[in-house]
Amino acid sequence: MTSLLLRNIGSLVTNAPDCPGDLGLLENAAVSIRDGVIVWAGPDDEIPVALLRGASIEVDGRAVVPGFVDSHTHLVFGGDRADEFSARLGGASYEEILASGGGIHSTVAATRGASTDDLVAQSSERAHRMLRSGTTTVEIKSGYGLNVTDEIRMLEIAGRVGKQTGIGVMRTFLGAHVPDRGMSEEEYVDAVVEEMLPSAAPHADFCDVFVDRGAFSVESARRIFRAAADHGLTARLHAEQLTHTGAAALAAEVGAASADHLDNATPNDAIALAAAGVVAVVLPGAGFSMRTPQAPARMLWDAGVVLALATDCNPGTSYVESMQFVIALAILEMGLTPDEAVWAATRGGARSLRRDDLGVVRPGAVADLVILDAPSHRHLPYRPGSDLAWKVIKSGEVVQ
Amino acid sequence: MTSLLLRNIGSLVTNAPDCPGDLGLLENAAVSIRDGVIVWAGPDDEIPVALLRGASIEVDGRAVVPGFVDSHTHLVFGGDRADEFSARLGGASYEEILASGGGIHSTVAATRGASTDDLVAQSSERAHRMLRSGTTTVEIKSGYGLNVTDEIRMLEIAGRVGKQTGIGVMRTFLGAHVPDRGMSEEEYVDAVVEEMLPSAAPHADFCDVFVDRGAFSVESARRIFRAAADHGLTARLHAEQLTHTGAAALAAEVGAASADHLDNATPNDAIALAAAGVVAVVLPGAGFSMRTPQAPARMLWDAGVVLALATDCNPGTSYVESMQFVIALAILEMGLTPDEAVWAATRGGARSLRRDDLGVVRPGAVADLVILDAPSHRHLPYRPGSDLAWKVIKSGEVVQ
Repeated sequence: MTSLLLRNIGSLVTNAPDCPGDLGLLENAAVSIRDGVIVWAGPDDEIPVALLRGASIEVDGRAVVPGFVDSHTHLVFGGDRADEFSARLGGASYEEILASGGGIHSTVAATRGASTDDLVAQSSERAHRMLRSGTTTVEIKSGYGLNVTDEIRMLEIAGRVGKQTGIGVMRTFLGAHVPDRGMSEEEYVDAVVEEMLPSAAPHADFCDVFVDRGAFSVESARRIFRAAADHGLTARLHAEQLTHTGAAALAAEVGAASADHLDNATPNDAIALAAAGVVAVVLPGAGFSMRTPQAPARMLWDAGVVLALATDCNPGTSYVESMQFVIALAILEMGLTPDEAVWAATRGGARSLRRDDLGVVRPGAVADLVILDAPSHRHLPYRPGSDLAWKVIKSGEVVQ
Repeated sequence: MTSLLLRNIGSLVTNAPDCPGDLGLLENAAVSIRDGVIVWAGPDDEIPVALLRGASIEVDGRAVVPGFVDSHTHLVFGGDRADEFSARLGGASYEEILASGGGIHSTVAATRGASTDDLVAQSSERAHRMLRSGTTTVEIKSGYGLNVTDEIRMLEIAGRVGKQTGIGVMRTFLGAHVPDRGMSEEEYVDAVVEEMLPSAAPHADFCDVFVDRGAFSVESARRIFRAAADHGLTARLHAEQLTHTGAAALAAEVGAASADHLDNATPNDAIALAAAGVVAVVLPGAGFSMRTPQAPARMLWDAGVVLALATDCNPGTSYVESMQFVIALAILEMGLTPDEAVWAATRGGARSLRRDDLGVVRPGAVADLVILDAPSHRHLPYRPGSDLAWKVIKSGEVVQ
């Protein structure tokens, strides 16, 4: 049995009330961990004497928050698209970038062309940087394979990244990212439903569909989600990003775990998501990187939608790894309060992944914690661009 | 004699042409260092054999840029103003913040109240984080002392921070930050000119004045700069930040090394600065943190003004330490190109500090270099919020 005791925590975010935005803050607190699980949290001067044995960390007044849960990434990919990024900042149009070989299909080609070991190595480097900056759980989507073999390979690599780095991984099958080159939407959806889903399902927790202009229609997505449900996969979807398509309403209709992006979501969408208990995953790194208006996170929150924050880490539109930076952006560019943003980056992410044991500090929860080198979580927007993680604890182990 | 050889640099920013925005890029390059100074830079397969002896670093295709020169900071301070920052995001007015004890005078009180050792320790922590993320030279202003004793103490602390961390430090006397509480502008300017300047001058390289609404007039600044010149200090100034006061024109008139902020600079100001060779130091971390429009960096650059980028690191309006983040902001929020922004963060900063031996890779220059864990400096805006420094070299020593 391994144990760890965190003492003299200046400010502890517990999220224990399980109410969005209520951080359940404790001052002068302590947390006791046994075998990777939290067994006790409370005032430092009330620690039960039986918990005093074993290793301890003197937190010395610093703030502690639950490990960040990054609930939307495309972490496994080959190649890089920095040239395309520079060209776009210089005014190049989407069509010019496609004509010069850029865009998602260049990542599909680079991912297919890379060896499995290479992809594991470079994806693990990204995951390791995430872990060191406080992300203890990451959702990873496939979607750069676009055929049975490569989609399954991506999901297997995502699993290996978790084993290699120690970061918690949840996996999402995103075969329906875009139709593969040379296939119509209908042909490709047939392939997703008939070939990919049955083989990919054992390797995934969720099924995602990119519903948008240039990707898939609401009708195609509905068909895919029905098939996914038959294979035991819960829906999550890319919704209302480039245009308004009705994807948020579909998320509510099919009882999706999450609707993500939501740049063009309407107040009616918010009502539907709130009523159906669909978590809205908003991705401020994409708006920041692409210079597009941020999603209406404030409107969604005020309408009662449960919010999660995530990086959208991908090589095209949001090569962002740091949840600390995402929190700062959500506060500074989306108008969330520090309490709301930290909640959404921890408990909100866990809710979107349907994990009751993450993003919360209470007996029985996984012992994922970040000790900030700061007296309060409010330093995250106050000191943007700096890494404030002093120590990161994943399943009770100090990883940094 | 210590020597170090950097081999197989994928992309080397030399800034050798000494022309704004021209990075003088070399591919497949090498750099040779002797006793802290660059002695040779060129193609890897042309390294003179005599330079092959001694230690070497296999850069393995990564990009190398000159160490960042952060030419505007208020790095030495006591206390923190995170609560004020949160209140402002929540809509509190400047007057409300002042009434609740916030604003610059709260930092003056906390700085005066802190022990010298405490201030050295916490300022060195900030400087150390800066150094590890690639800043090899930092300008540090006084200005939270506002009397002879405390202003000199701040300048001495700035010097100790340099010795303790190894970061290069240039010091600026900013006695004229705001008038001390209870003093009129005229009384305070008298004290600056008659008491502070003569005592502070031996501890400083520059003299700065905050010219703005609520601070000092152009006339007061002119008087202070004349006295500073008599004591051998070159002018730099806070100009056109909150309102347009004519400070940029004053900078041109007195031959200042730099005019900083410039949020409200006009095309006529740009013409004056360019003609007088005054470097414009722009500070995108402040606009990002305060949610105010960014300074017209694009206009200034296009008018021929030499630009520098800096963090403005301070506890009120821009608690930013990372020049990598500042570069990303300058590209994404100010419309500079990656080449322009990297030039401004290296050679531009050095120009504003009148240092010909910094921000450039050529024989005789100080061996300050950053090896990025990326194939190109264009990854800095492409991967915002991540720290891409793989190794940092200060005066020929690997500090990380």
